[in-house]
Amino acid sequence: MYKPERLMAFCDGVIAIAITLLVLGLEVPSVHSMTDQQLLAFLEDSLHPLWGYVVSFILVGTYWLQHYVIFHYVDKVDRTFVALNGVFLLCISFVPFPTGLQSSFRDDDLAMVIYAATQAACGASLVWIWWYATRGRRLVRDDVSDSVVKSILWRTSVTPLVSLLALLVLPISQDMSRLMFLVIPIAQFSHREQEPGG
Amino acid sequence: MYKPERLMAFCDGVIAIAITLLVLGLEVPSVHSMTDQQLLAFLEDSLHPLWGYVVSFILVGTYWLQHYVIFHYVDKVDRTFVALNGVFLLCISFVPFPTGLQSSFRDDDLAMVIYAATQAACGASLVWIWWYATRGRRLVRDDVSDSVVKSILWRTSVTPLVSLLALLVLPISQDMSRLMFLVIPIAQFSHREQEPGG
Amino acid sequence: MYKPERLMAFCDGVIAIAITLLVLGLEVPSVHSMTDQQLLAFLEDSLHPLWGYVVSFILVGTYWLQHYVIFHYVDKVDRTFVALNGVFLLCISFVPFPTGLQSSFRDDDLAMVIYAATQAACGASLVWIWWYATRGRRLVRDDVSDSVVKSILWRTSVTPLVSLLALLVLPISQDMSRLMFLVIPIAQFSHREQEPGG
Amino acid sequence: MYKPERLMAFCDGVIAIAITLLVLGLEVPSVHSMTDQQLLAFLEDSLHPLWGYVVSFILVGTYWLQHYVIFHYVDKVDRTFVALNGVFLLCISFVPFPTGLQSSFRDDDLAMVIYAATQAACGASLVWIWWYATRGRRLVRDDVSDSVVKSILWRTSVTPLVSLLALLVLPISQDMSRLMFLVIPIAQFSHREQEPGG
Repeated sequence: MYKPERLMAFCDGVIAIAITLLVLGLEVPSVHSMTDQQLLAFLEDSLHPLWGYVVSFILVGTYWLQHYVIFHYVDKVDRTFVALNGVFLLCISFVPFPTGLQSSFRDDDLAMVIYAATQAACGASLVWIWWYATRGRRLVRDDVSDSVVKSILWRTSVTPLVSLLALLVLPISQDMSRLMFLVIPIAQFSHREQEPGG
Repeated sequence: MYKPERLMAFCDGVIAIAITLLVLGLEVPSVHSMTDQQLLAFLEDSLHPLWGYVVSFILVGTYWLQHYVIFHYVDKVDRTFVALNGVFLLCISFVPFPTGLQSSFRDDDLAMVIYAATQAACGASLVWIWWYATRGRRLVRDDVSDSVVKSILWRTSVTPLVSLLALLVLPISQDMSRLMFLVIPIAQFSHREQEPGG
Repeated sequence: MYKPERLMAFCDGVIAIAITLLVLGLEVPSVHSMTDQQLLAFLEDSLHPLWGYVVSFILVGTYWLQHYVIFHYVDKVDRTFVALNGVFLLCISFVPFPTGLQSSFRDDDLAMVIYAATQAACGASLVWIWWYATRGRRLVRDDVSDSVVKSILWRTSVTPLVSLLALLVLPISQDMSRLMFLVIPIAQFSHREQEPGG
Repeated sequence: MYKPERLMAFCDGVIAIAITLLVLGLEVPSVHSMTDQQLLAFLEDSLHPLWGYVVSFILVGTYWLQHYVIFHYVDKVDRTFVALNGVFLLCISFVPFPTGLQSSFRDDDLAMVIYAATQAACGASLVWIWWYATRGRRLVRDDVSDSVVKSILWRTSVTPLVSLLALLVLPISQDMSRLMFLVIPIAQFSHREQEPGG
């Protein structure tokens, strides 16, 4: 059994880098002169990737908040837990790829399927982390109440559920499918806190 | 209510990455042989992006200092505060894009407008963070005096004000507009400290 | 003699960045319209780099875990130890290059040799770090038992040994050689913990 | 006056990212099939950038060690000190650019001049940081002896001196000039420690 501090700091590092690397998906033309007309056309073309950037940034930020809340209760760490966090980080650091994909292939359903699957995997790994840590109070503090366990389990489950819904809506409207993902941060940040203080 | 340490560390991570990614905007030609003439021409072409790199680096560094000062007084954190910090990080990590834009479109006013708007957003989010934290001493230590609250509020407001001024100057002279942004770090670093020690 | 905390944090930073940069090796086409056919072809082409990405991610994650376990026992740091950690970080941060190489040259044995050599170097540097720290209990806590010293020495040695085996298998089957590397994380994560708590 | 911990962590972050970004200077061809002949030619072409990568990695690592040693003695921080650290970070995060430059323009003296100037600036900013902190024991612990102050001042001065020497040697032999930079890590890591413990 090891202390959670360093694992937490390492996860923070990976999430911070993944969230910041998203901006590299926004290409800047490397020519050094362009007409106003061309710049406007370029910016119009950038609107779609920009929107994808903002949404992915908000989603990764939301996963970070959920991870933050989970580690608020974790007070020890074993190898399986490290491995589960590794799965979570693998999903998170993969996000720039499907984000770029659905920016480049904006009208393609397949790109959206890959995007939704990645988000679902990020959420599912958080569910798994919390489930493993709280099962028989394995890695969490003893005073964590059942209501906290259930509340966080439910809230982390929102991501895979919403991703699934977004896939179901996809054949009807791609734009609606895209907007669905905003339910994830809204559900998370609108939550009224009832958990005991730190 | 959670402890601010991890949020602070996460913000530091994102700011550190954003500030270091700026250098990726400086392109190095990937050919492996060039005449001296060509290298000189290339370097001359790089002077403008280089200047943009230095200014953006200084600005992001200044925002970090302001964030550092703010968190010196914050001793607890709630979900809204996390969300506000998320908005700040979104603005900060976006900076490489307008920096690249105004490097590539050097004579274009529109590129400068986007640049100024990004800087204004960075500054405004810091104002918002400080205002939210100090409103009724919500998240700051009780012993924070009114003069400290006002002093930091004023200094974080410099960034949006200067960005607005830079926009007003833009039709007159683009170079002057560019230089205006240096007022932000000067105002911040020249400040005489009167705040109580840590 | 210095405290290990800052060295540990710095190593975490470099490993976190190296592991996250791997995703940049997955290229996204920058065209903004493509037929479904082309996207499918592109994704099929991406499967091989994707697999390389996942394996390298798991390997670097495993080295992080080993580093984490090592620093669990280290309680002071000297210049030679810092230098050895520098060698380790040089190897780790180099991983994206051979990963990209064996993605681009997928049927080439030479690319696999470079890949295996890099992994072997990562593992060997960890062996060296642990050997230096425990030699005469130089930098570790006094209560570290001989069995812990031997156990970690053996487990860090798995990486260079497996890399060597992968090279031997290479003339027979490249795919088998590639799969061999998965022995490294399996050996590490399947380990039953007997070490004293933190 | 603020506590040095967060400034230290922020500097660590920027240095860790700058040192890891160096690997992005090593280009991997994005074609997915190449003859053995072409791969060998590519690797031969990569030897020079690879050497540049290793040297820059070692140099940045050495600056980190010097920064680590300096902060071992610093126990408070003011705005000027933050600004000086900002100058240091600006130099450090700039290193990937001249590294790439002298990789691409391998026989060009001008590229080496820019490289040497950057290294000199990194070293000079460390001299400045230490000088400012120790002047009248402004920011360091009171028990820091004169011999420690002088010893670190001397050792941080090695970098600008060696960079200057490398420039003087440049007209005679570019290779010798390149090798000179290795004196910096050797001088730093071969140092016998006499400083009091942490």
